[in-house]
Amino acid sequence: MSAPQVREVPIGLRANGTRTESDSLGEIEVPAGHYWGAQTQRSLLHFDIGDDRMPKAVYRAYGHIKKAAAIVNAGAGRLPQWQADLISRVADEVVRGELDGEFPLYVWQTGSGTQSNMNVNEVISNRAIQLVGGRLGSKDPIHPNDHVNMGQSSNDTFVTAMHIAAAETVDDDVLPAAVRLRDAAAAKSREWEHVVKIGRTHLEDATPLTVGQEWSGYVAQLSDAIDHLERTGVGLYRLAIGGTAVGTGLNAPPGFGQEMAAKIAELTGLPFTSAPNTFAAQTSCDDLVRVSAALRTLAVPLFKFANDLRWLGSGPRTGLHELILPSNEPGSSIMPGKVNPTQAEAMLMVAIQVIGNDTAVSMAGAEGNFELNAFRPVIIKNVLHSARILADMMDHFRTFLVEGAKLDMERLRHNIDHSIMMVTALSPVVGYDEAARIAHHALDHGLPLKDAALDCGVPADLYDRIVKPENLTRPGVPGADGGGRR
Amino acid sequence: MSAPQVREVPIGLRANGTRTESDSLGEIEVPAGHYWGAQTQRSLLHFDIGDDRMPKAVYRAYGHIKKAAAIVNAGAGRLPQWQADLISRVADEVVRGELDGEFPLYVWQTGSGTQSNMNVNEVISNRAIQLVGGRLGSKDPIHPNDHVNMGQSSNDTFVTAMHIAAAETVDDDVLPAAVRLRDAAAAKSREWEHVVKIGRTHLEDATPLTVGQEWSGYVAQLSDAIDHLERTGVGLYRLAIGGTAVGTGLNAPPGFGQEMAAKIAELTGLPFTSAPNTFAAQTSCDDLVRVSAALRTLAVPLFKFANDLRWLGSGPRTGLHELILPSNEPGSSIMPGKVNPTQAEAMLMVAIQVIGNDTAVSMAGAEGNFELNAFRPVIIKNVLHSARILADMMDHFRTFLVEGAKLDMERLRHNIDHSIMMVTALSPVVGYDEAARIAHHALDHGLPLKDAALDCGVPADLYDRIVKPENLTRPGVPGADGGGRR
Amino acid sequence: MSAPQVREVPIGLRANGTRTESDSLGEIEVPAGHYWGAQTQRSLLHFDIGDDRMPKAVYRAYGHIKKAAAIVNAGAGRLPQWQADLISRVADEVVRGELDGEFPLYVWQTGSGTQSNMNVNEVISNRAIQLVGGRLGSKDPIHPNDHVNMGQSSNDTFVTAMHIAAAETVDDDVLPAAVRLRDAAAAKSREWEHVVKIGRTHLEDATPLTVGQEWSGYVAQLSDAIDHLERTGVGLYRLAIGGTAVGTGLNAPPGFGQEMAAKIAELTGLPFTSAPNTFAAQTSCDDLVRVSAALRTLAVPLFKFANDLRWLGSGPRTGLHELILPSNEPGSSIMPGKVNPTQAEAMLMVAIQVIGNDTAVSMAGAEGNFELNAFRPVIIKNVLHSARILADMMDHFRTFLVEGAKLDMERLRHNIDHSIMMVTALSPVVGYDEAARIAHHALDHGLPLKDAALDCGVPADLYDRIVKPENLTRPGVPGADGGGRR
Amino acid sequence: MSAPQVREVPIGLRANGTRTESDSLGEIEVPAGHYWGAQTQRSLLHFDIGDDRMPKAVYRAYGHIKKAAAIVNAGAGRLPQWQADLISRVADEVVRGELDGEFPLYVWQTGSGTQSNMNVNEVISNRAIQLVGGRLGSKDPIHPNDHVNMGQSSNDTFVTAMHIAAAETVDDDVLPAAVRLRDAAAAKSREWEHVVKIGRTHLEDATPLTVGQEWSGYVAQLSDAIDHLERTGVGLYRLAIGGTAVGTGLNAPPGFGQEMAAKIAELTGLPFTSAPNTFAAQTSCDDLVRVSAALRTLAVPLFKFANDLRWLGSGPRTGLHELILPSNEPGSSIMPGKVNPTQAEAMLMVAIQVIGNDTAVSMAGAEGNFELNAFRPVIIKNVLHSARILADMMDHFRTFLVEGAKLDMERLRHNIDHSIMMVTALSPVVGYDEAARIAHHALDHGLPLKDAALDCGVPADLYDRIVKPENLTRPGVPGADGGGRR
Repeated sequence: MSAPQVREVPIGLRANGTRTESDSLGEIEVPAGHYWGAQTQRSLLHFDIGDDRMPKAVYRAYGHIKKAAAIVNAGAGRLPQWQADLISRVADEVVRGELDGEFPLYVWQTGSGTQSNMNVNEVISNRAIQLVGGRLGSKDPIHPNDHVNMGQSSNDTFVTAMHIAAAETVDDDVLPAAVRLRDAAAAKSREWEHVVKIGRTHLEDATPLTVGQEWSGYVAQLSDAIDHLERTGVGLYRLAIGGTAVGTGLNAPPGFGQEMAAKIAELTGLPFTSAPNTFAAQTSCDDLVRVSAALRTLAVPLFKFANDLRWLGSGPRTGLHELILPSNEPGSSIMPGKVNPTQAEAMLMVAIQVIGNDTAVSMAGAEGNFELNAFRPVIIKNVLHSARILADMMDHFRTFLVEGAKLDMERLRHNIDHSIMMVTALSPVVGYDEAARIAHHALDHGLPLKDAALDCGVPADLYDRIVKPENLTRPGVPGADGGGRR
Repeated sequence: MSAPQVREVPIGLRANGTRTESDSLGEIEVPAGHYWGAQTQRSLLHFDIGDDRMPKAVYRAYGHIKKAAAIVNAGAGRLPQWQADLISRVADEVVRGELDGEFPLYVWQTGSGTQSNMNVNEVISNRAIQLVGGRLGSKDPIHPNDHVNMGQSSNDTFVTAMHIAAAETVDDDVLPAAVRLRDAAAAKSREWEHVVKIGRTHLEDATPLTVGQEWSGYVAQLSDAIDHLERTGVGLYRLAIGGTAVGTGLNAPPGFGQEMAAKIAELTGLPFTSAPNTFAAQTSCDDLVRVSAALRTLAVPLFKFANDLRWLGSGPRTGLHELILPSNEPGSSIMPGKVNPTQAEAMLMVAIQVIGNDTAVSMAGAEGNFELNAFRPVIIKNVLHSARILADMMDHFRTFLVEGAKLDMERLRHNIDHSIMMVTALSPVVGYDEAARIAHHALDHGLPLKDAALDCGVPADLYDRIVKPENLTRPGVPGADGGGRR
Repeated sequence: MSAPQVREVPIGLRANGTRTESDSLGEIEVPAGHYWGAQTQRSLLHFDIGDDRMPKAVYRAYGHIKKAAAIVNAGAGRLPQWQADLISRVADEVVRGELDGEFPLYVWQTGSGTQSNMNVNEVISNRAIQLVGGRLGSKDPIHPNDHVNMGQSSNDTFVTAMHIAAAETVDDDVLPAAVRLRDAAAAKSREWEHVVKIGRTHLEDATPLTVGQEWSGYVAQLSDAIDHLERTGVGLYRLAIGGTAVGTGLNAPPGFGQEMAAKIAELTGLPFTSAPNTFAAQTSCDDLVRVSAALRTLAVPLFKFANDLRWLGSGPRTGLHELILPSNEPGSSIMPGKVNPTQAEAMLMVAIQVIGNDTAVSMAGAEGNFELNAFRPVIIKNVLHSARILADMMDHFRTFLVEGAKLDMERLRHNIDHSIMMVTALSPVVGYDEAARIAHHALDHGLPLKDAALDCGVPADLYDRIVKPENLTRPGVPGADGGGRR
Repeated sequence: MSAPQVREVPIGLRANGTRTESDSLGEIEVPAGHYWGAQTQRSLLHFDIGDDRMPKAVYRAYGHIKKAAAIVNAGAGRLPQWQADLISRVADEVVRGELDGEFPLYVWQTGSGTQSNMNVNEVISNRAIQLVGGRLGSKDPIHPNDHVNMGQSSNDTFVTAMHIAAAETVDDDVLPAAVRLRDAAAAKSREWEHVVKIGRTHLEDATPLTVGQEWSGYVAQLSDAIDHLERTGVGLYRLAIGGTAVGTGLNAPPGFGQEMAAKIAELTGLPFTSAPNTFAAQTSCDDLVRVSAALRTLAVPLFKFANDLRWLGSGPRTGLHELILPSNEPGSSIMPGKVNPTQAEAMLMVAIQVIGNDTAVSMAGAEGNFELNAFRPVIIKNVLHSARILADMMDHFRTFLVEGAKLDMERLRHNIDHSIMMVTALSPVVGYDEAARIAHHALDHGLPLKDAALDCGVPADLYDRIVKPENLTRPGVPGADGGGRR
């Protein structure tokens, strides 16, 4: 067949009612206003469950795959160039999200993602047919299986699309947002480098440190979580593509996986490669299980960070209130003037959601059988969900809480003046037991520490020399320099 | 103020640009085409995180609350009747979902749900103002706090709305779908009451039972899960309403909680009552934590049911294939003619999601502090999500898999003829050790059981009398009558 | 065979080296100093994994089962009375824990628990043989399978033992400890019925309540959790016994399950009955999954209770410190005089462990296949672990923290005097917006609430009449009477 | 004080009754037969909860720490050499496990681990006192705080001990066991490199692959999990030591942390270094949270591996039975001759336990507050538990299942001969739609694939050329060479 002429037809089908499409189970009516075909329609009928749709990021990733396949197949002479060009052109529309409305399928569908793959194949087929003035549903001149899906299976492409979608989200959204938040915290750590505050362990008064040191801890925790996510995310660059049905690569030419990975890398700008073992790549979602865990191990320090901030900001009169959080919204429908740590609460909830999502991913990841893990949709749904809400939340938390946080200097000073745990500094001089006696004496009689120390026979000049809060925060140990190390 | 005239204005604001609204933090521009006010707008600005919106069911529940409050407040003479009527009228629009588009807030917001409560208050206020020809944003003559929220706090109303929304979903959707599925399984159990099959324990061949008996197990598991969910769901009928800010009921009149609960019961048709202890009702989400667990303990037997069916249907040539599952869709984009157990896979994924959601609910439920659990949005999101996907999935699983399942009678018979575990029936006669010797003899020499038994000296007539598969399935014990008990 | 003479031989085998035992796989050497036989020894060899042993409570439950079976079998004339008596006698030793040292098997073994059942069968067999002067390992005159296991399978007995062990632990340990803790909290609630304190929502200052009201919330949460656990635990009384290998009851006489359940009820004093569907009872552990969830929903309010107490006790100088926790131990190896909320911390950790255990139970509960759930050991391990640590922890938490807790009256009063959230009481009088203006005025200028109110034009006598903290705590709503309802 | 003479006194206290010990809360009686002091005793009294003891590995790690501290302190002239030598000597006894019986404390204790640190300090003190003939409990000449704990806090040492214990277990036990299992699987993969079998996706018949290829997938999954655990485990080498109470290093000399880490590295042979930020290192357990997740992401492929093997071994007559699993134990107490996949079941349960443990670790890891994570005991308990059971289980699974597994060649061949999914190979030649028609024809009429193909017009020679199972397994794609890549 020679190349038909491609016309500039804008996206959209101006038709009412239904159109007859067919697949190996026979004919079925589909909405005439949509490009999708028989298998998409069957999935819609059988899986109209809840509101969870397959994330659009998966379809955009599929756009890259279908374009890459067209190019590679044409390059190998397996597909006429004009067919490849036509598929590529439509695939670009998919990548740009212009066909998003044509991908209506639910998360709860076949465990391989086949129906979403066929949705893409069918939409590209019919859109291509439209462009050359053919008859929708005729599969001519672009067949959804024989041409769009050439050399591919859902079993290798869907997990490939999952990797691409997850890698893009992690690289483009999660990691940059995490770095921005880390850097904002580091700025605060530097700003408050010399502000002394009372430390707290077990929630109880402890020895002093600087606010900058405290925040350097948040910075370091985030840095570690970022490093771990980056290192773990590398696994996403390994693509199953080329394994086709069961990993052997049946119906794909030699080297197809490597060529595809290289082409996808070129199209996306990310360093994708061919998975070293296609059997593992198709029968497991282990790389995604690891990334889910890495997202969770980012959620864990975020939970701690947000939790600390809401406690430090508690009050204003009867809480800790060392920190003054921005007043973003009225806090109560009944208590006038109330302001709440809402960004922190949202972050805590997001972290909990990520932990819950990860439980689902972990269980689903374990359930592969033989040559396929058939729990892919629930895995990609949860991984992308975790990534999305973490990324967005970190930006909001940074903008609307961290960057606007201020210190209540008066409260900080008051706490330093009244705590008794600076007795610890006396311990190396008078011994632990005697120091404990001084502390108990102060507590029992409601005394300032110095008074208690003098009562117990500590010379005033010795006390003054040793118990200087500022000095207690920098005895010279690693990490005590008030700044995150990165 | 005397009652203004109420005009029949259809829902909708035909205005472009923005309108100035205000709250205790000052003025803010909101889209002129929407009813919501300042606090909703602030939440939109500060919490534009992911795609998770507060479920509409929560707002519809709020419609009932606001209407009930207007009626109760008017009845007590605290609110003029015309104000109550106006609020009620708009609340009905909320209940009917006609104002759904005015509730755009995200799940990730303040942990108390205050912003969603204020969203409702603001929308009712402005819609009411529109109906009497007032100025939007003027809070006159219906003030979002003083009138719509009269006698209420977010702290008592939001968790009340959570209970109403969850109770309605469980009662109207989950339980009926579960009963339908259970009954469909019971029909199959009766249909296949006398079909003998080989049992399997540890996946290994075991003694026989009837297919009906096997299915009676699914029926009984579902019945127990239904009972448990029903019993546990009763806790949702206890409403926090009346506790206001911290549970004491400040700013609500005596008896307000009880009157509100009675009115809500009347409006919804569900037996809501006032929570026996408002402090517990506001500082915890324990009833929802229990319901989440009960949904999960429904997911557990559903996982088992779906898992069994996909295994029993595996093949067609090299799997177990005792069951013939309906061919709903082509199963593969590369392997022609393949049909997969997609409904079972979707059910397994839904069950896993419910387990993951429950982890999140459990953690969030533990995190209350003092007079409030500020993790409510993540809790209601996950509970309603679990309920929704379970309900829908059970109906699809029933319709597209259970009801259409058939038996491969040939395979069932073949398995019975070839298994050797019926040797168990000989055990009481010849002793365990001798019976084991017969079994090993059969296995080692690839013999049918009878040949092995005769080789080992068992008389043929004794063998024939004892080893009848049909008889082995009904020695008269409880539960062996092939039917679920309900 | 006529009844041999039973001699009074104390428990114990005075022998070194090994003894030859056998099973259907052949002979094997076992330690001569122990009663167990071949199958126990094989399990020890193949499953020497970690330190997790099958809990002793399971074996003691098995003692009841084996005794009941002997009695029922003898009663039906299937087992000579002297054999039944001999088995019963040894089973009593098992129940009393006198043979605990003979049950060395690990949790990580066959998923049906068969090896633990055989361990019991073998030990009873050999101990009985010892009592009649027979040869250990001869299986004569008491055969582990033919006599001790008569009419039984591991598939029905192991899950029966799981139910018995769990029911006893829940009924005897968890529920009483929970009731004791609830009652101790109720005593505190009554003791502090009239002590006014500032409420906190979102950790932020809110309207006042009494300490007794706050504690009534803990009481109510615990009461609900207790009720739920009681109701859910009823499922444990349904025993699988009688189903034998696959639920049909093969090799057990008609009515065996019911007779066994009645006998076990008599022996244990708990209302055990026969499971209504033996297929469900053997292929699932749903009752235990539900109990695990109920234990978790007890852990959730315990987490909240303990968390509140440690925060309320934080300080002593720079925390909230409304509560004075008992000083049980020195808190720091470096900070002299430090005292920490250790009981609360232990409780928080126990609650977390219970949540983690429940995740495992939930996943394991879903994994049954066909006629058996082969994940029983991990389920019973986790359920009994959760039950045990919860029961013990609640008693310790009560004794060493709750009962000794005192109030810091000075701090409570100071907080009431300085909070501004009592402005809420003005709201119904001056309107929400004006009340908010007063609150912001107080905050912005560091004023007491009254000063701010007067600045904003509220008459002093109006203020004094309305803003009385004591009154604000009892506007007459349900639950506000300061006491738990039970 | 000059150095007292050290005598060779064997470990052990031959004394009955009690001895009076003291700490800052006063005097208390301790068992005279034990070395521990007042704080250990108080912990025993207050935390006698369940059966979970702090793992011995933590105490042995503490032995390294106390020895290193003595050496470093002496080197800096802060501690007389003879005191350091004495402490070192006893610390060696701790490391060798000779004092294990002196560490009785429970997991459920103070969240910082202080009591276990003091347990070590007290035992070393008293054992040292015994060696120089002093009076037990006198703290002279070796004081538990002033000397054994010199320059240290529980807040830095306990998490340091956690890292050491976890690093040793991961490096010495988990990783080697995983490598051994991976290598055993690789040997099987090579052994069965050319054995063709039918593939299965969605449990349904699919295109063929070799058994070696299937096993190469297990190998690759394990290799990836091993790599990830190795990379993640590196975080454990970073020690908090030097931060003392709140991370500032108060009471420790400059450089103490680095010197300690270097000395501990020397003593243990592992590359420990000082944590880059001591605040993060003490307020979080993030490195352990990550390692827990990495253990879980090892459990996930192990679950899949074990699950596949038990299914492939199912039968022997009515299951898949491609694999013949070793007969390690009799499988049933009622069904003679039954053999079950017990090692696989144990592995599945272990994997589930690890997933449950990880949920607990994840939640506990999020709960740090300010300068301390006070949920350390539950974290280290679960991490070491997961590590231990995984390591042991992998060795048993390898020895008793993988290495002894054989193929049922007859069944494999039969399956290949009867499957119809090799129709896929015809697809590129005849088109997907025609190939699907052939498949349905075969299924509908119960025909072998070839007969169906010929019926549909495929020439016999074309069929024979294309549909060769062996060829279908090696179309030349990556990963299809039948071997794991490592």
